[in-house]
Amino acid sequence: MPFAYARTIRFSDTDAAGIVFFARYLAICHEAYEEALATAGLPLATFFSDHCVIVPIAKSEASYLRPLACGEKVRVEVTPRRLSENSFALEFAIWKLPAPGSAAGDKRAAVARTEHVCISSATRERHPLPAALAAWVDGG
Amino acid sequence: MPFAYARTIRFSDTDAAGIVFFARYLAICHEAYEEALATAGLPLATFFSDHCVIVPIAKSEASYLRPLACGEKVRVEVTPRRLSENSFALEFAIWKLPAPGSAAGDKRAAVARTEHVCISSATRERHPLPAALAAWVDGG
Amino acid sequence: MPFAYARTIRFSDTDAAGIVFFARYLAICHEAYEEALATAGLPLATFFSDHCVIVPIAKSEASYLRPLACGEKVRVEVTPRRLSENSFALEFAIWKLPAPGSAAGDKRAAVARTEHVCISSATRERHPLPAALAAWVDGG
Amino acid sequence: MPFAYARTIRFSDTDAAGIVFFARYLAICHEAYEEALATAGLPLATFFSDHCVIVPIAKSEASYLRPLACGEKVRVEVTPRRLSENSFALEFAIWKLPAPGSAAGDKRAAVARTEHVCISSATRERHPLPAALAAWVDGG
Repeated sequence: MPFAYARTIRFSDTDAAGIVFFARYLAICHEAYEEALATAGLPLATFFSDHCVIVPIAKSEASYLRPLACGEKVRVEVTPRRLSENSFALEFAIWKLPAPGSAAGDKRAAVARTEHVCISSATRERHPLPAALAAWVDGG
Repeated sequence: MPFAYARTIRFSDTDAAGIVFFARYLAICHEAYEEALATAGLPLATFFSDHCVIVPIAKSEASYLRPLACGEKVRVEVTPRRLSENSFALEFAIWKLPAPGSAAGDKRAAVARTEHVCISSATRERHPLPAALAAWVDGG
Repeated sequence: MPFAYARTIRFSDTDAAGIVFFARYLAICHEAYEEALATAGLPLATFFSDHCVIVPIAKSEASYLRPLACGEKVRVEVTPRRLSENSFALEFAIWKLPAPGSAAGDKRAAVARTEHVCISSATRERHPLPAALAAWVDGG
Repeated sequence: MPFAYARTIRFSDTDAAGIVFFARYLAICHEAYEEALATAGLPLATFFSDHCVIVPIAKSEASYLRPLACGEKVRVEVTPRRLSENSFALEFAIWKLPAPGSAAGDKRAAVARTEHVCISSATRERHPLPAALAAWVDGG
């Protein structure tokens, strides 16, 4: 079961086309990653600095399948995938929930994928994932 | 009792100073307004267009009392105040919640206030608040 | 010669890691697209609505090669590529300019690619690119 | 003569109402502040850390006078005002430029004001403005 993050689309997520700006989908995916880490006891604000690593995003890709409007509810699923000793990918699916009272099911609004590389803050070289992060990636 | 909106500070809310960028406090307040309206059955995405009015923000002010960092939890309180037949203010307090396990109480991170004026979409003249919006403002 | 857009990195582009948040790279690429369209006489705010089409982004991908910090100068190059009668891609390169006085050359900070599909506002079906947009995509 | 900063309104500045989201006006004002500092030789990214101070914003206020749409050009004027040994205010006016070919003059789209307090990074106490910053505030 992937980690699931619930989110309401906010006015500031939207643009003049009346729907969520494409780059905001990735920001919303990153929120789901932050929440998944926090739930696993790995808070983004302190975990990496405590381990003297940074884990920047090296790549992203996204397919935008449905527009999302202000007030709509989404569920973001996050699935980590190990790529190497010092890198991993996150696969995201953003599901649009039906309006209250609707019999429709959830519909995929977007899928996205990010690649993350662990780097030593001291040497700027690639560095193995800290054990707790590796455990989250491998057990997702 | 003011309406209360729960929010976690996200990485994209922060800036290179390591804390929430000042303009984002106002965006977070607006989220609380959206949630308060939705809870009152007045969804921002459709309510105003259904009533052929717009309700733009004419003024804002904010006092920034404490920094907020990624992962911290806040509670945003929203209190509407009627100003006239066609305008109202919203008073916001952003409370920073203590870290889990801390005995500290909530601390005010910011207070803010916005002024909203109701305008007819057709005439661009000031227009009385729609009844349901007036009821929410007056009953807050 | 690709279209080139000059931009200074702003504080609100950055996050608590001290550098530009990954999703903001795509927003900066979109600015370059807007500027390229405006320069070609195709203003985003009115061109599409005048032609009763929307041209949403269907896919995006990006590789993040170098961090960017507040105050740094970038040049964003935009190259359109025709994909079909009703779609095109944009290829972006974000180049980080050297600090004033430095003898270093420009360095690629990111490359990105977006895919855009033209859709009739009336029928929601795919629709050929308006002639002026097609001309810009095909080589200006 | 106040410092003047030129800016084009971007799609990501707008919201589903089709115009610039109110909190973005303040972010745009902050860009003008960054540019004014950089022009005065005081780059935001390094000046404060070099002087071991932070200069957070304590208050903001804004009046939103006209909507701004994607593609419109604005000029942001910044005027610093000394408040005390360790604080200053910035007064902003955002002027909307006429469309090319229009005989209309510039129109004020917003006015805003921010208050900034200088604090020692070491002691977290109020600290006098560094001399170069004080010189800029006091009149360049």
